Amino acid sequence: MIKFDGPTSSLRVELGERSYDIYIGGGLLDEAGAATARLLPKTKKVCIISDSNVAPLYGERLQKSLKAAGLVPFLLTFKAGEESKNLNVLGKLLEAMAQGGLTRSDALIALGGGVTGDLGGFAAACYMRGISFIQVPTSLLAQIDSSVGGKVAVDLAAGKNLAGAFYQPKAVFIDTELLSTLPRRFLHDGCAEAVKYGCIEDAELFARLNACADEAALLEAAPEIVAACCAIKARIVEQDEKDTGLRAVLNFGHTLGHAVEQHYGYGTYTHGEGVAIGMYQITKGSEALGLTAPGTAAAVKEILLRYRLPLGDDIDKKALLAVMAKDKKKQGDSITLVLLKRIGEAVLKRLPWQEVPAYIGRS
Amino acid sequence: MIKFDGPTSSLRVELGERSYDIYIGGGLLDEAGAATARLLPKTKKVCIISDSNVAPLYGERLQKSLKAAGLVPFLLTFKAGEESKNLNVLGKLLEAMAQGGLTRSDALIALGGGVTGDLGGFAAACYMRGISFIQVPTSLLAQIDSSVGGKVAVDLAAGKNLAGAFYQPKAVFIDTELLSTLPRRFLHDGCAEAVKYGCIEDAELFARLNACADEAALLEAAPEIVAACCAIKARIVEQDEKDTGLRAVLNFGHTLGHAVEQHYGYGTYTHGEGVAIGMYQITKGSEALGLTAPGTAAAVKEILLRYRLPLGDDIDKKALLAVMAKDKKKQGDSITLVLLKRIGEAVLKRLPWQEVPAYIGRS
Repeated sequence: MIKFDGPTSSLRVELGERSYDIYIGGGLLDEAGAATARLLPKTKKVCIISDSNVAPLYGERLQKSLKAAGLVPFLLTFKAGEESKNLNVLGKLLEAMAQGGLTRSDALIALGGGVTGDLGGFAAACYMRGISFIQVPTSLLAQIDSSVGGKVAVDLAAGKNLAGAFYQPKAVFIDTELLSTLPRRFLHDGCAEAVKYGCIEDAELFARLNACADEAALLEAAPEIVAACCAIKARIVEQDEKDTGLRAVLNFGHTLGHAVEQHYGYGTYTHGEGVAIGMYQITKGSEALGLTAPGTAAAVKEILLRYRLPLGDDIDKKALLAVMAKDKKKQGDSITLVLLKRIGEAVLKRLPWQEVPAYIGRS
Repeated sequence: MIKFDGPTSSLRVELGERSYDIYIGGGLLDEAGAATARLLPKTKKVCIISDSNVAPLYGERLQKSLKAAGLVPFLLTFKAGEESKNLNVLGKLLEAMAQGGLTRSDALIALGGGVTGDLGGFAAACYMRGISFIQVPTSLLAQIDSSVGGKVAVDLAAGKNLAGAFYQPKAVFIDTELLSTLPRRFLHDGCAEAVKYGCIEDAELFARLNACADEAALLEAAPEIVAACCAIKARIVEQDEKDTGLRAVLNFGHTLGHAVEQHYGYGTYTHGEGVAIGMYQITKGSEALGLTAPGTAAAVKEILLRYRLPLGDDIDKKALLAVMAKDKKKQGDSITLVLLKRIGEAVLKRLPWQEVPAYIGRS
């Protein structure tokens, strides 16, 4: 068992031989070395993958922690941004891992946000057909979403995340103190996903998020909020590791959200902003259709405004429907939407393509 | 259950939820469509990946068979040769798969030799984090070795097979009639691996191979010989899917063989020729050290000469030792060699690096 000093909580993701623990607390970064050494006794070298934003902030501290535990770290940095999440950058990282002498019994740590976890995780999955891999997520979005569940990937020209794997980490170390350096817009970006967990599974979490008066309150509550979100994601992933059914509830707000990101160009809206628009518009639509408890859309609206997230009442719905039609999640003539029955309870609804417009909300 | 007409044998690889069957017989290619449709009822489109040598020979027949079963095939061809087994070609194939509209419920068939199986299999493993995958191996080497066991990969500049996955196929369809178009040198190439199975596990198979008077006799015995080889590989893979122990016995002759391929340049010696040299030289060495029954090296020599495979008595052992030292299988200061106790029985021997020269045979 790995023991951290201080107020750390841990959470197990039960996936048989691929089970692992998520550790959550402030200051974990400095203990990552000792924890890695205990968890992976055969590992000598550790390749840290990070981007040009995060490496200067935390790369040195993580290396110091690993060295103090007797490990031999080396840091590979790539240019920050979704545009680095491709096969070309992946290839460069893999060559550098080989040049660095990384063996099958060594390990890789992804230190950063969602792009780093996806790219670094896929590098770990591919390298010598898979080496040990640890997630150290530094953004709120990565801490509560992408670092848990084993989805790793790079983008193709043809679409996002089209080349990847289901590859579970050996552990996730979530240091919630790292959130203090996160630009405010990206903190709110993560809040959209936290709100999503509240919406689909946990009315109490929803209320807790709604009760945070400002960023300072949110950051103080971060260990508790992150743990609640990770617990929900872990339970869902345990039941549907390969994303063939239940895991789809995690896509609440995402089908429309991805279309928003894609239509307006990645970067115009953050991922969380797209998801916020998707959650609100879909809930407005399903409430109007009588499938969602009255007042739910208003509650979603209130919390999104609190976190300065967009509602998307002015989005071009016709154009978004055209984008959605090309979405890979569309299988044949029907599509699965995630709808709320009420705050804290979601349902999957499979419907013929022509019925979708009715769910995209009215302005 | 899938039923083939005619004299087909089948063999199950038991790997829990990743179990699959290997079907072996003459003329299976024309039944691959019907078998695929029965095995994968949700599949509509099938992407066939093949190389510029094999596609013109068998691409049309496989497509015809798939169409007759109601499936929608499309063929992607890459330039034949190990030099195509890289991330760049992989990326082009993945983009073309996306352009072809392949969904998560569709499938990929690798039609060809070892390069095609490795590259196509890795494309299937990556695409949308993994789609169904069927191997239709066309070379003897692929039929008895690379198509079974789930090792897929591409090469990096830093070394062979450094980026890949363990990704099991849903089925392997082995049409032994396809071997008739195989250039003779590559038939013998595969024979080296067949001899390897006899050496490590099956003295009867060794005798059966030794009894084939010429190529015609070998081709006639192919269904039986291929089945015997696949059965051995399947049993070993079942016990060590991820190559962490026992599976290493399959490397008999390979550590030195890879060094031969690498030192003399890929293409100078085929893979099988390298393995032949490795098997003979290591056995000569271990016999001289008293670890192998007297006469074993002579028996190996006799069978290799029968299949016009090289013995390597004139190889540059000093240079090869230097190459081996860089081999990824070398972990730390020691290396695991596969030695024969006698024909049909192998042992793994872990030894300090400085003892290796004694095992590399004397001229």
